[in-house]
Amino acid sequence: MRIAVLGGGNGAHQMAADLTLAGLKVNMFEMPRFKENVEKLLRTGEIETFGGAREGKARLNMASTDIEKVLEDVKHIFIVVPAFAHRPYAELLASYLKRDQTVTLFPGTLGTLEFVKVLRDEGVTWDLTVAETDTLPWACRLVAPATVKVYHTLKRFGVGVFPSKRSRRVTEFLEKIFPIFTHPDVISCGLSSLNPTLHAASVLLNVGRIEYSRGEFYLYEEGITPSVARVVKAVDKERLAIGKAWGYDLTPVEEDLYLSGYGPKGNLWQAVRGSSLTFIKGPTSIESRYLTEDVPYGLVPWVGLAGLVGLDVPVMKSVVWIVSALHGRDYWSEGRTLEKLGISDLSVEEIKRFVAEGEK
Amino acid sequence: MRIAVLGGGNGAHQMAADLTLAGLKVNMFEMPRFKENVEKLLRTGEIETFGGAREGKARLNMASTDIEKVLEDVKHIFIVVPAFAHRPYAELLASYLKRDQTVTLFPGTLGTLEFVKVLRDEGVTWDLTVAETDTLPWACRLVAPATVKVYHTLKRFGVGVFPSKRSRRVTEFLEKIFPIFTHPDVISCGLSSLNPTLHAASVLLNVGRIEYSRGEFYLYEEGITPSVARVVKAVDKERLAIGKAWGYDLTPVEEDLYLSGYGPKGNLWQAVRGSSLTFIKGPTSIESRYLTEDVPYGLVPWVGLAGLVGLDVPVMKSVVWIVSALHGRDYWSEGRTLEKLGISDLSVEEIKRFVAEGEK
Repeated sequence: MRIAVLGGGNGAHQMAADLTLAGLKVNMFEMPRFKENVEKLLRTGEIETFGGAREGKARLNMASTDIEKVLEDVKHIFIVVPAFAHRPYAELLASYLKRDQTVTLFPGTLGTLEFVKVLRDEGVTWDLTVAETDTLPWACRLVAPATVKVYHTLKRFGVGVFPSKRSRRVTEFLEKIFPIFTHPDVISCGLSSLNPTLHAASVLLNVGRIEYSRGEFYLYEEGITPSVARVVKAVDKERLAIGKAWGYDLTPVEEDLYLSGYGPKGNLWQAVRGSSLTFIKGPTSIESRYLTEDVPYGLVPWVGLAGLVGLDVPVMKSVVWIVSALHGRDYWSEGRTLEKLGISDLSVEEIKRFVAEGEK
Repeated sequence: MRIAVLGGGNGAHQMAADLTLAGLKVNMFEMPRFKENVEKLLRTGEIETFGGAREGKARLNMASTDIEKVLEDVKHIFIVVPAFAHRPYAELLASYLKRDQTVTLFPGTLGTLEFVKVLRDEGVTWDLTVAETDTLPWACRLVAPATVKVYHTLKRFGVGVFPSKRSRRVTEFLEKIFPIFTHPDVISCGLSSLNPTLHAASVLLNVGRIEYSRGEFYLYEEGITPSVARVVKAVDKERLAIGKAWGYDLTPVEEDLYLSGYGPKGNLWQAVRGSSLTFIKGPTSIESRYLTEDVPYGLVPWVGLAGLVGLDVPVMKSVVWIVSALHGRDYWSEGRTLEKLGISDLSVEEIKRFVAEGEK
């Protein structure tokens, strides 16, 4: 089985290495404009991973910036990139994706819908199957070129498939590799992303320290204090309320941390304190993806989904406003709006049918 | 000239000591229920102050928990207490205030209006003259019982008088003692309080550090980084916009810090970094008055004033929402609402007439 892994960051490296060590043939792709970042990988075709279940040097089937070659004879495409890269990848794949290929975004945070919209706008008319996960399968960091350190391997995470009527086409394959469960649809999965809940408010309440310490900062060790955890839980409760209003029974963040093996069963502060996440350094700057990705591509679409069911989510909105002020940006328009997801003109019932059937 | 100083905290101690050392007779009052806090003061009648312009041991004319005695033969009453104590002091004075006495709140943040409303509700019908300042005249802290350390003596601060047509009755006296300027009215003065602008957002963005360090924290030294200053300025710009919509030309916070002698002329970060405030420790806990006072008694009424002129102030509102979540409180209802100020049923024009003339 040949798999394409698209992306060149922490997660993509670990994905390519782990699947290779598991015996799969992996074609890895990075965009030509980022080729300097992965020079060693492209030259050697090798990635070393340590700290996880499978350790060692993985010799990939291919590492290339040629998308056509990478996608050849591949059935499953794993896109392992930040949310803001979903759109450029969709624009790229519009010309290369084949009918028998499925795409999975690791993770998605509703990125499937943006992905589908771009492909449709680019003229792709045939049935698409695009999945997303609600988190990366690992907490990991590149510690040197083509070298990944794994802090944690998740025991369980969720997958949502668009359209949900074709869920088995993707999950049947994914569950051979990963400890997944299947969300009812991509909306449920997108509302279950761990990062926007866990990162945005907690980093906001530590902005002073991150900057004053010049990045000598460990969010999970020192940043998520009991009071910070209380605000994170306020965001989480709003997320659960959005889920409930949409008809989903979402998992509270502290329970999710427990079920995915991160931390002990307990409240959020306890789950974080007792987790391997405490060893991860960062964010080291205010421009961290913990804010620049998780606010515009996480909280912004969640607030949008809340609006569609007439729910007010003042704490989430407040985090978006203050982070916008912090960065001098307007994340309400720059972020993943309902328009960009292609669902701004639909009712809740129409959206539910769309994500189930694949047709508006 | 005999002056009554009501209150038993940092500011009240310094006020009583400084005025005494300046040659005035000071009667100091603390509420009977707090008498344990000022046991030494009540026993000795002395306060020591150092670090300011006038240093030494001040022997007060009186220090007592008997309000009737304290107010005897006094023309000017200085109330130097946190904003949440304005109401209990108004309730107390309703039975004791005399027609020829003026009251000044150090500082007020619109407390004059709450004060006047309580007195009216308690049946006081005669003309009232109640003033407020936009800051304390000193940055100071009690470092031991009846001992105050002064970090800074303000070179300039503002006073607003209710009703503004009787401004001279108060300012004529105050300007003999303090380097004051006179605001057009108490709304302008209340919108010029330094603390809600300077404290609320900056502490919020340092919650993690304050708690993780167990209070080993210096807000002005380490907490107001360039990024934190940017968010404080976002709050300040909204405050200036409220002022403009109400017809006032308010002073930007960094300019105010410069004019009051705190810091150098420059941007907010520079003004703070170069100020004596950097030597003040704290807040040492999340329950600090920097949040519990400055959010419900500062930002909440400001958002109310913004609403009256149809102005949206999303960053201020967001700070109130997140601090409410942080404390598990509803500061929107607990705080200084327009109802508590007695102006919720008035138009902007009616409020302006009310604060000018003293009659609705």
